[in-house]
Amino acid sequence: MFKNSYMERAIELAKEAMQLGEIPIAAVLVHDSIISAQYNKTILLNDNTMHAEMLVLREGALKLNTRYLSQCDLYVTLEPCQMCMHAISLARVRRLYFGSYNKLKSIWHGTQVYGGLYEEICSDLLKSFFMQKRKA
Amino acid sequence: MFKNSYMERAIELAKEAMQLGEIPIAAVLVHDSIISAQYNKTILLNDNTMHAEMLVLREGALKLNTRYLSQCDLYVTLEPCQMCMHAISLARVRRLYFGSYNKLKSIWHGTQVYGGLYEEICSDLLKSFFMQKRKA
Repeated sequence: MFKNSYMERAIELAKEAMQLGEIPIAAVLVHDSIISAQYNKTILLNDNTMHAEMLVLREGALKLNTRYLSQCDLYVTLEPCQMCMHAISLARVRRLYFGSYNKLKSIWHGTQVYGGLYEEICSDLLKSFFMQKRKA
Repeated sequence: MFKNSYMERAIELAKEAMQLGEIPIAAVLVHDSIISAQYNKTILLNDNTMHAEMLVLREGALKLNTRYLSQCDLYVTLEPCQMCMHAISLARVRRLYFGSYNKLKSIWHGTQVYGGLYEEICSDLLKSFFMQKRKA
């Protein structure tokens, strides 16, 4: 169930980020109490993938020692981007609560994509891995 | 331009992963030469976001000390998932070369999503940050 105090903590952290010249977005991961609370660090860490959500998911997995955060809820001040949204899904987060809606959803920065290289070798590796798993 | 040796290095690493019981997927980030080469570590690190691509993007940003990997090419043995694809775009990777096509593209693991909480406060923070940036 949504708790004001967790979203308010995220907002506090977003304000702290702003004072440091960082983009004011923050995330709080909760499992009974707060497991991880982080603001965006793309500027501070000089890495465009260091979104607040990625940081709390990583810290949450480390602290709880699990790949599945299905007992955890996530509070974020901004609607997550596609990277974070998929990460949240991969981590099986139970509930996501976010503040403002993101109007810049799917900007593609022009990476050129070429697929199907060494395709058979690459897919055979995966096939044999999952075949072994099924046998085990 | 695509170089066989980089994809072959990724395949080698994917095989190493397999021997460790890890999912055989690997990524190689190149800027003139190899900057980072990693295999998937979701099982080893117990974190479902620790895909090979995320690991090389992080290492690349650290080593080159830049948020923009626009001089870098990325070789991956499997078509990236949505999290990694968006991360690749955020990092402005120049070219992505991948091996096999991913047939499991958009599985949503059931996170419940609630938006628009404290919406005005959260969006005002972002607005004032970008207003300050424009003035600076």
